Amino acid sequence: MKKILNDPNRFVDEMLDGLYRAHPDQLAYAAGDPHCLVRADAPIEGKVALATGGGSGHLPVFLGYVGQGMLNGCAVGDVFQSPSADQMLEVTKRIHGGKGVLYIYGNYGGDVMNFDMATEMAAMDDIEVRTVLVRDDVASASEQRAETRRGVAGMVFAFKIAGAKADQGGSLDEVEAAALKALAHTRTMGVALSSCTLPAAGRPTFDIGEGEMEIGMGIHGEKGVRRGPLESADQIAEELLEAVLAELDVHSGDRLAVMVNGLGATPLEELYILFRQVHRSLETRGVGVYQAFVGEYATSLEMAGASLTIMKLDDDLQALLDHPARTPFFVQVGK
Amino acid sequence: MKKILNDPNRFVDEMLDGLYRAHPDQLAYAAGDPHCLVRADAPIEGKVALATGGGSGHLPVFLGYVGQGMLNGCAVGDVFQSPSADQMLEVTKRIHGGKGVLYIYGNYGGDVMNFDMATEMAAMDDIEVRTVLVRDDVASASEQRAETRRGVAGMVFAFKIAGAKADQGGSLDEVEAAALKALAHTRTMGVALSSCTLPAAGRPTFDIGEGEMEIGMGIHGEKGVRRGPLESADQIAEELLEAVLAELDVHSGDRLAVMVNGLGATPLEELYILFRQVHRSLETRGVGVYQAFVGEYATSLEMAGASLTIMKLDDDLQALLDHPARTPFFVQVGK
Repeated sequence: MKKILNDPNRFVDEMLDGLYRAHPDQLAYAAGDPHCLVRADAPIEGKVALATGGGSGHLPVFLGYVGQGMLNGCAVGDVFQSPSADQMLEVTKRIHGGKGVLYIYGNYGGDVMNFDMATEMAAMDDIEVRTVLVRDDVASASEQRAETRRGVAGMVFAFKIAGAKADQGGSLDEVEAAALKALAHTRTMGVALSSCTLPAAGRPTFDIGEGEMEIGMGIHGEKGVRRGPLESADQIAEELLEAVLAELDVHSGDRLAVMVNGLGATPLEELYILFRQVHRSLETRGVGVYQAFVGEYATSLEMAGASLTIMKLDDDLQALLDHPARTPFFVQVGK
Repeated sequence: MKKILNDPNRFVDEMLDGLYRAHPDQLAYAAGDPHCLVRADAPIEGKVALATGGGSGHLPVFLGYVGQGMLNGCAVGDVFQSPSADQMLEVTKRIHGGKGVLYIYGNYGGDVMNFDMATEMAAMDDIEVRTVLVRDDVASASEQRAETRRGVAGMVFAFKIAGAKADQGGSLDEVEAAALKALAHTRTMGVALSSCTLPAAGRPTFDIGEGEMEIGMGIHGEKGVRRGPLESADQIAEELLEAVLAELDVHSGDRLAVMVNGLGATPLEELYILFRQVHRSLETRGVGVYQAFVGEYATSLEMAGASLTIMKLDDDLQALLDHPARTPFFVQVGK
């Protein structure tokens, strides 16, 4: 393990302390608990509020999308661990602007259990909460069992679309519908080249050979769909693209939002080489890339690898994508 | 070597192809050569134009800062290699808006030789070119030999400040002066935890033990000031901060721009842990952080490690820092 650390057990606390020190005009926390992260200007009265949450180690996911035009708050767990229901409740109470709260988060057991408890507790405070689960990782289960899939980088598009709808004054019904629509149009698949190392564990989460890759591995090291020899960038791009497009009804003339996301240790240069082949392949299909997102959007500490996320756009989703957003990690300049 | 690649010898060409495909509304190239990268709307008539250049493998440096409010063009070399004088000239000709061109780039022998040749060739085309060399790396030579120092992440502040001055309509004298002032107020030092691997070489550039770090290593693996056991984040932060502040006349009441830059493989979480201690230490000195930049700004492929850059602000630099900027890799929302 080669990490820039102090006490591994204080990894998340110190990361959060650094974060609040870096972005005091944008971020604050509720209930005296730094794990209850909210927009500095929360609550936004008269608008639907969006919250997420989950384990740490995935920056910018989850907390990096709290800001104007995206999320209002985030419950922050320990590395790869769910935050508590109490923390989610405190975030919920602090961000509620009188129009209800929408939870959008990845489909992981601990998070689901705690967010569901928080939903019940919030109801006792007369805060209406709805939930949209992110299950965009096509490698994590078959299409027949899509409701069991894990949530990965595609959640960023859900945050963006639903956040825009809320910022525009949409009702809780409308914001929920926007999130569901974004996710219905979004799929992701990834490839891992190396393991991450949890700070408190101090050793790699899994072993993978020097010449190997694992297609479809999850962002906590969950087993993928196949392991094999490391292939070329173009072969990897094609395999990810085929899998992602298989469930999206994409035809010539369509336009997409395309995200090539680095998992932590993979240089930006390699992400652009992957994106190149995705774009070339789409071009031969007559499909356009409306906006490209190439960079680190959802990581797994220092894992090497990448994921491909595609959201198929229509006029409605495109307008919501264009809506301006600003967080410490993500800026969308309005069109 | 575990990289997402096709032919290692096409690494830069394919990266560039991906880049132009990802950002067609922002980036274009001159003279039919993708290595001659310019703003899509070049030239901007009636304004001073800024250019940079250097080897590839450092994204977002160099080309990532071409865009509104920053640079107008960039000559792109092979991995860790200077672009040619001809490529610099073609960039210069394409971006020249009638008010002269300022080159801002890192102090590396090949780049200096080629940019100087390009300057002479541009003069024959009646384009006035000035040069500001970036030499912010305090570890690369003593203060007495500061003119021999290398340029690293501090160049981003020079791009930002000079780019703002040019965008505001400053003359070539004024833009040059702004760049020089920014650099006079800026210092950087870094730490490396692991080597990068050049795609065409296929093996690490240097060896470093599992429990070792090297303070002051350059972004191509140039020797640092000392190698020793890997220390805690707080110890590293203090060592970098002491070295950087030693040459900046920083006192209680001053305000700074602070950049904690990841070299490629170090997770964002660790960068925030480093930033935390920098901020705490400045706080005890009564020094404020006006704006924090925590992320990957100048990398060395998949090197693990970080650098600390500080620019001491005055009212003038602060206003130029606040000026809006937008590139595919860097967005500054105006204040």
